[in-house]
Amino acid sequence: MNGNNKVVLAYSGGLDTSVILKWLIEEGYEVIAYIADVGQAGDFKQAEKKALKVGAKKVYVEDLKKELVKDYIFPIFKANALYEGRYLLGTAAARPLIAKRQIEIAAMEKAGFVSHGATGKGNDQVRFELAYYALNPKIKVLAPWKMESFLKKFSGRTDLIKYAEAKGIEITSTIKKPYSEDDNLLHISHEAGILEDPAHEPSEDIFSKTVSPEKAPDKPTRLTIWFKDGEPVKAETPDDGRSETDPLRLFTFLNELGEKNGIGRIDMVENRFVGIKSRGVYETPGGTILFAAHKDIEGIAMDREVMRLRDMFSQKFAELVYNGFWFSPEMDFLRSAIDKSQEAIDGKVTLKLYKGNVMVTGRESPSSLYDKDLSSMDIEGGFDQKDSAGFIRIHATRLMAHNAIMNKHGGRK
Amino acid sequence: MNGNNKVVLAYSGGLDTSVILKWLIEEGYEVIAYIADVGQAGDFKQAEKKALKVGAKKVYVEDLKKELVKDYIFPIFKANALYEGRYLLGTAAARPLIAKRQIEIAAMEKAGFVSHGATGKGNDQVRFELAYYALNPKIKVLAPWKMESFLKKFSGRTDLIKYAEAKGIEITSTIKKPYSEDDNLLHISHEAGILEDPAHEPSEDIFSKTVSPEKAPDKPTRLTIWFKDGEPVKAETPDDGRSETDPLRLFTFLNELGEKNGIGRIDMVENRFVGIKSRGVYETPGGTILFAAHKDIEGIAMDREVMRLRDMFSQKFAELVYNGFWFSPEMDFLRSAIDKSQEAIDGKVTLKLYKGNVMVTGRESPSSLYDKDLSSMDIEGGFDQKDSAGFIRIHATRLMAHNAIMNKHGGRK
Amino acid sequence: MNGNNKVVLAYSGGLDTSVILKWLIEEGYEVIAYIADVGQAGDFKQAEKKALKVGAKKVYVEDLKKELVKDYIFPIFKANALYEGRYLLGTAAARPLIAKRQIEIAAMEKAGFVSHGATGKGNDQVRFELAYYALNPKIKVLAPWKMESFLKKFSGRTDLIKYAEAKGIEITSTIKKPYSEDDNLLHISHEAGILEDPAHEPSEDIFSKTVSPEKAPDKPTRLTIWFKDGEPVKAETPDDGRSETDPLRLFTFLNELGEKNGIGRIDMVENRFVGIKSRGVYETPGGTILFAAHKDIEGIAMDREVMRLRDMFSQKFAELVYNGFWFSPEMDFLRSAIDKSQEAIDGKVTLKLYKGNVMVTGRESPSSLYDKDLSSMDIEGGFDQKDSAGFIRIHATRLMAHNAIMNKHGGRK
Amino acid sequence: MNGNNKVVLAYSGGLDTSVILKWLIEEGYEVIAYIADVGQAGDFKQAEKKALKVGAKKVYVEDLKKELVKDYIFPIFKANALYEGRYLLGTAAARPLIAKRQIEIAAMEKAGFVSHGATGKGNDQVRFELAYYALNPKIKVLAPWKMESFLKKFSGRTDLIKYAEAKGIEITSTIKKPYSEDDNLLHISHEAGILEDPAHEPSEDIFSKTVSPEKAPDKPTRLTIWFKDGEPVKAETPDDGRSETDPLRLFTFLNELGEKNGIGRIDMVENRFVGIKSRGVYETPGGTILFAAHKDIEGIAMDREVMRLRDMFSQKFAELVYNGFWFSPEMDFLRSAIDKSQEAIDGKVTLKLYKGNVMVTGRESPSSLYDKDLSSMDIEGGFDQKDSAGFIRIHATRLMAHNAIMNKHGGRK
Repeated sequence: MNGNNKVVLAYSGGLDTSVILKWLIEEGYEVIAYIADVGQAGDFKQAEKKALKVGAKKVYVEDLKKELVKDYIFPIFKANALYEGRYLLGTAAARPLIAKRQIEIAAMEKAGFVSHGATGKGNDQVRFELAYYALNPKIKVLAPWKMESFLKKFSGRTDLIKYAEAKGIEITSTIKKPYSEDDNLLHISHEAGILEDPAHEPSEDIFSKTVSPEKAPDKPTRLTIWFKDGEPVKAETPDDGRSETDPLRLFTFLNELGEKNGIGRIDMVENRFVGIKSRGVYETPGGTILFAAHKDIEGIAMDREVMRLRDMFSQKFAELVYNGFWFSPEMDFLRSAIDKSQEAIDGKVTLKLYKGNVMVTGRESPSSLYDKDLSSMDIEGGFDQKDSAGFIRIHATRLMAHNAIMNKHGGRK
Repeated sequence: MNGNNKVVLAYSGGLDTSVILKWLIEEGYEVIAYIADVGQAGDFKQAEKKALKVGAKKVYVEDLKKELVKDYIFPIFKANALYEGRYLLGTAAARPLIAKRQIEIAAMEKAGFVSHGATGKGNDQVRFELAYYALNPKIKVLAPWKMESFLKKFSGRTDLIKYAEAKGIEITSTIKKPYSEDDNLLHISHEAGILEDPAHEPSEDIFSKTVSPEKAPDKPTRLTIWFKDGEPVKAETPDDGRSETDPLRLFTFLNELGEKNGIGRIDMVENRFVGIKSRGVYETPGGTILFAAHKDIEGIAMDREVMRLRDMFSQKFAELVYNGFWFSPEMDFLRSAIDKSQEAIDGKVTLKLYKGNVMVTGRESPSSLYDKDLSSMDIEGGFDQKDSAGFIRIHATRLMAHNAIMNKHGGRK
Repeated sequence: MNGNNKVVLAYSGGLDTSVILKWLIEEGYEVIAYIADVGQAGDFKQAEKKALKVGAKKVYVEDLKKELVKDYIFPIFKANALYEGRYLLGTAAARPLIAKRQIEIAAMEKAGFVSHGATGKGNDQVRFELAYYALNPKIKVLAPWKMESFLKKFSGRTDLIKYAEAKGIEITSTIKKPYSEDDNLLHISHEAGILEDPAHEPSEDIFSKTVSPEKAPDKPTRLTIWFKDGEPVKAETPDDGRSETDPLRLFTFLNELGEKNGIGRIDMVENRFVGIKSRGVYETPGGTILFAAHKDIEGIAMDREVMRLRDMFSQKFAELVYNGFWFSPEMDFLRSAIDKSQEAIDGKVTLKLYKGNVMVTGRESPSSLYDKDLSSMDIEGGFDQKDSAGFIRIHATRLMAHNAIMNKHGGRK
Repeated sequence: MNGNNKVVLAYSGGLDTSVILKWLIEEGYEVIAYIADVGQAGDFKQAEKKALKVGAKKVYVEDLKKELVKDYIFPIFKANALYEGRYLLGTAAARPLIAKRQIEIAAMEKAGFVSHGATGKGNDQVRFELAYYALNPKIKVLAPWKMESFLKKFSGRTDLIKYAEAKGIEITSTIKKPYSEDDNLLHISHEAGILEDPAHEPSEDIFSKTVSPEKAPDKPTRLTIWFKDGEPVKAETPDDGRSETDPLRLFTFLNELGEKNGIGRIDMVENRFVGIKSRGVYETPGGTILFAAHKDIEGIAMDREVMRLRDMFSQKFAELVYNGFWFSPEMDFLRSAIDKSQEAIDGKVTLKLYKGNVMVTGRESPSSLYDKDLSSMDIEGGFDQKDSAGFIRIHATRLMAHNAIMNKHGGRK
């Protein structure tokens, strides 16, 4: 161990990172525990105490929720990013922010190392480490679940518990859930354990951020969301007159509405960056509402061809977020393009939330490209229907030529 | 009028095409009425009688439902085609089939003309006419709503009714709905009229192919769908033991289940091919179920990188169908690629249908690329976690170089 | 004819637009002739006189070359835009600029009409008219080659000549070239006439902007081009010490070097926007050099993944320019993205020009992402070769799973 | 070392693989040397003798040239694959074939290991190893340049030479070139060493597969190439009447013509898969001719929209080949799509080869989509010019709506 043996560890207070904290100390490191509040359930005070008790030299507890909403969640929803057509990127959204703070704290504390407790088969290790390296190429990463010396000692949960008991580390949750979770403001994920069988239906007790559609109220909740440049600026439920404009309060409000109405559950098999397929069960209550509303306001305010081009990028954007390339030149490039596409995405969308459904019922936009007279099937208006004849014939020119060739070659195959 | 004055008219039995039938006769054409049963509600016998009464020389009534399911609907769902992220292409799926039959009948009847009643502002005119021209570049198209002589006479519905009364054409629906509809096996669309205001919420009486989620049963329906090469080959509701394998019966079964459970309503502003934005309200009960199930089976059976490439094509595929390029070299190209991608998309998906929700609860596949041991977060298995360290560091190489440049240029922008 | 009968005509001084000028006057229009100097060969004074003599109320002669280089040509080359992999968009670059000026002059002159002499089968009509409509949706377009009344009178060149003779319009070039041309600062095109046979080799006398490679000097010309944010800022020939930095002078310099060294001839069959295939022979001397140099500087200064994303857009960018969508929301979107991608595309490229060849011989960049130590095949350096083993194995995980499935399904197909 | 200690080593006869051969033996392996003739210069008999002398248990020498042309080179050119717009994938084309044969021989010989001499920083290691793993997930790979035990012993060329001398391994080339090369039928690459400085101009003596354009004949060579389904089926030089149809002979013929006329030199900085930028100097004489001819025949025989879609794939295809994913599900998918696109790519292209230039002078195709009458600028023909007015106005509809919005928002930005 050279002079600098300081490490900033992303610490949750749970069994894994507590064991890692202790193990790092035993390996000769001086550990600074970093506890990020990204909206997950948990007692941060208690986690802080525990870290100190296990042996952390210093503990940081930070509330990152505002930054998470403004600088990570809203940009993702501006991009309509949806990984493999379904996953709203809940876990992926928070990782780069935590990693960025670890690197910043490492700089302040003059620590040469950062560490995290993510396994070597998952996506989170990549998200943490790519962010670390991108922000500070000189940083050294301690990822115990990929280190020979750690893996020799710990081959599973039983070893962790034994070690914890031996070292006097308090094991908070005596009854471990039979699957793993990641919780933050945007979502909670449930995977692994009993959920590893992709045919196994998740039982109701797994869910914690939404009621089931079956148990949701029989009466729909009406909601209006206003957008400015593609970002939500106001959410209002007309029936009770509640209205939020502050980003964090607005998003939390959407979460409450989604939770109550059983909105945002997804069960899917997805492709991890490391080449493994994985089954995930997700709850994203507010995000699911926001996604639907944003898509809808774009329908009326975005030019068709801009939409086509942007759509080429949305999939890529989602992949980059999922794969951990938040801090990358290609992400900077995409974000710049997305921002341009959102310049006049203004207006409001009215919605009905009901037992798992997000139903759009109408929309209005000051920059609407929709023109009632044009779209009317009536004959009057600025659009000369006779022009369509030429439009179609010109578009058919190419098809006619192809027809001739195909006939020459023995008919359409 | 030259020797050949025969025209094959796509005839629905409604006011518009009845007036067109008469008008064409008065313009000197000999009209063959073509009535296609693509699953819409309607009395085809009565329509046939009416066509003859108005003056058609001959009437064809054909049941195209089987062909529609097998050769149009299933290929569209194999491609995951979704126009602008939401529209399941209901109307677009049926038009090329009707047009194809018109061209085939024109060949049999030695008719030089085909005709349809679609307006000059919509998508359907394009879908009909591009198909006509692609299949027979020599065909002549009579599209009255784009013809000077017709437009001079008829500037709206009132003129049509007056003409019908004057010519003794029976007006079946005395009370016209205040919006227009297109109905077939895949969906029903509602647009124009009172729906032209995009902020106007559609009232419940508009819907005809689905009950509202609110009125759907309180008990979910369980459903299993089996796929082979990306096509559904069996659908079964375990609770009542009903099971269907014939394509048309299977799809009709899905429609019934969707209808009952309030599934498949969409309200959106979309971009027509002619450059106009348009508001559409759609009901696609069975299609919505099939779409979700197909996407899910792909999740477990399709390679990630094939999925990425295919996804580049799905959007394009949807555009081509929407814009009327069903019969085109680019469509042949895409369909060939899609078929390749579906070669091992086999297995079954279990679903729960409940008040508007299509919830996937599990899946199994004989060609599953999912490996429980690999995806497990446990340490054992064929995957060496330590490899991930190199994987990440190599991926970070590029980001580190970028970091150096950005620092040189004055920091991350 | 209503009160406003003023029309701004894009006037070249040639037979076609002179006849159109006269014909418009005879149709009752008051014609303002607009002569744009976009770098084509021609006597603009004489054209001005001729327009007045034929009857134009007013003539504008404007030198647009600087604007053409800065606002049209350089942006196109920043985007690496190449239509169908070969065409450098010479004609397409100048049309929107001319159209924009016509619309601006129409506004100043309170003219309700604009007019051009492009035919109804080509791309230029689209480029002119889309720009007109985009910049002023209320403008009325007089495109004689698509107007019934004009076409009835003029069915080809013979009719034009007869009319000119009858009206006392001087026919400057008594010997018409047996093909048509479009000339500007960026290129000259040759097409139609004898070149319509795509198997017919263009004879040497067709070319006017380049010597043939065979006749170019036996000694190569050495050239260095400096870039800043993707735009050329200096070009220098070290052997004679000539150096240019002003955009127009720099581009003209490249043209001279290209012309002398036989650079930039292309012979291809391309796809017009109206669905017709067309054979074009092009000379783009300076552009061909600039394209090669720009691509090369990007090689060293652009991040790989940004390049991949940008490349998705370059093809689209070229299509938009070719099809006439210069003034469009999608073009604004793409230009914004391209500009972002060029932020650090700085440095210099050294080239050798020789008998048709543009040979890059080296490059340097202050924002180079190239690192000699990293790319070295030697073992030392910041890159740990052992990391590559994990990188490869992780990338192979997916392929191994696929292999297993394929074996199950009866081997690789 | 377990029972099975057989390894199939890709052996070149050079210093590196000879040392590796010896080292593997000393490490306890039984080595089968595999010598592939993929068209590189070299004495295969002598290499065989040397392998046996160094200690190989068995040596395979195989001529893979025919397979290389038919199954690797032609498919790549059918796809118009060009890595980063310039590199014709010479090295990348041969690696998967060699790897495939190693795996096949390993199966025959019941060897559990394969080995190669590629470094840990380059692309070739990835190409070899991904192919190994894809074809046999159970194979074990010995890549000495990534193995701790080897790297400890050998830190550069000096160590290799010392070891060779100590072990009595003959060092054939006493004067090592100051850069490294990879030679095969398709190309020769030159990189590293003195070429690592991207500003350093390669001197003439580096090149071995082409004369310099300056030294090429003053008289052009005329050439005609015939294509069937996108593959060259005949090449003929009319002046001397030579004609080749056999794939290997045809491609070798193109190589000779390219070599003689100074065709196919490229100097570029490219992006390796491992995230490093690298400077490469390439000579691809025949490939450069074939690429130009194939692109040209597509111009006349391929539908525009198929071309657009295919072009989306060409870049991806090139990346996959470059990155080593020849044997992958996504490659199978792309190859299927490419083959479909080439179904009617038939005809002939005439070319002029002259001092580095490949000039297309004409083309003909039995499936030509080019129609002289349609593309003619004359007025007559099946194309009604008046249709273009409607075509343009409909395309402008969207732009007009955008104009209105922009004006409302304070003018075009």
